[in-house]
Amino acid sequence: MDMNLIPDIVVGRLPRYLQALQRMSEDGHLSTSSQELGDRLGISAAQIRKDLSQFGEFGKQGTGYAIPYLIDQLESILKIKKVWDIALIGAGDLGRAIAHYQGFSNRGFRIALVFDNSREKIGKNIGNFIIQDIADLEKKVREAHIQVAMLTVPASVAQIVAETVVKTGIRAILSYAPTPLNLPDDVHVEYIDPLIQLQHMTYYLG
Amino acid sequence: MDMNLIPDIVVGRLPRYLQALQRMSEDGHLSTSSQELGDRLGISAAQIRKDLSQFGEFGKQGTGYAIPYLIDQLESILKIKKVWDIALIGAGDLGRAIAHYQGFSNRGFRIALVFDNSREKIGKNIGNFIIQDIADLEKKVREAHIQVAMLTVPASVAQIVAETVVKTGIRAILSYAPTPLNLPDDVHVEYIDPLIQLQHMTYYLG
Repeated sequence: MDMNLIPDIVVGRLPRYLQALQRMSEDGHLSTSSQELGDRLGISAAQIRKDLSQFGEFGKQGTGYAIPYLIDQLESILKIKKVWDIALIGAGDLGRAIAHYQGFSNRGFRIALVFDNSREKIGKNIGNFIIQDIADLEKKVREAHIQVAMLTVPASVAQIVAETVVKTGIRAILSYAPTPLNLPDDVHVEYIDPLIQLQHMTYYLG
Repeated sequence: MDMNLIPDIVVGRLPRYLQALQRMSEDGHLSTSSQELGDRLGISAAQIRKDLSQFGEFGKQGTGYAIPYLIDQLESILKIKKVWDIALIGAGDLGRAIAHYQGFSNRGFRIALVFDNSREKIGKNIGNFIIQDIADLEKKVREAHIQVAMLTVPASVAQIVAETVVKTGIRAILSYAPTPLNLPDDVHVEYIDPLIQLQHMTYYLG
């Protein structure tokens, strides 16, 4: 099976399936159906069956999906059986909140290093981390074999910081800066911007 | 024109167009083309023309779009010519970072009230806000005519908090809690979850 043939929009739904399954598992459930999963996620059962069928056969007609098995398979597909180290860049309020957040580590990720360019912040503590000098980014990232970065820097410097990140060899960037980044095609970029999502909703309000 | 006929996925792209246009405007640009806008956003020029044409005629063949005019039109379509007050629920690290964030107010939104259920937090300050008792949510939200909520509460309580929010009459919720919410169909819910987006990217990593 050539994974490159699977549409990105399908890949993007897998983490949502995984999250819902993990919550069901935590609630003590052992099996589920595409119907039940769909009801939780607001996605049709047919869509879920079609999406999952692109990756293999995970359930049986009539008996549904064994939750632990499907979780295991989705974790393999998404490559999160291992823990990915993250370089967090920007030690402001948001960077601080993320550095304190405990929910990454049992989901395939862990903040490994925190960087900033401010003389007042470098060397200080943030959560369990000592804030590193952004000037050392490439050296430290290569030493630690880090492949994922999160940007919590102001929009005005996001492009230049992202270009520095790409120079380290990192090919996956999650940016909280409210601006589109212009990066090489082989770099995967995802954005988190509450304004974009708030503005999407107000379209529908009276 | 019946706005309900426009697909939600098209509506969801408008805030991204607006964001890119605002950045161009801040950089001193007065006009742009669907090609230039598309290059910034990684969206095809044809898609942008098709999306915008669903709402009206905003540009001219050959001369492109006048940026201030298109910004004005998109702000009207997205109903952000006014400023929407937001009830922020959950005064933990993330709630604190959001309460301190200055970037909402010139983009159509403003945090108006902050709530928590912790006796230790209620009455204390967070940014310019005094943390309110979640028990007073319905009364305070109705008094202030608030129509939008942001949830920064743990996943374990997100569903019950969201149901409380819906009782106040709020019909737009942006949730940072990593769990799907099961709410009435007339409630618009958007999720922000870095793990979902990180897991989407690791699928493509080596």
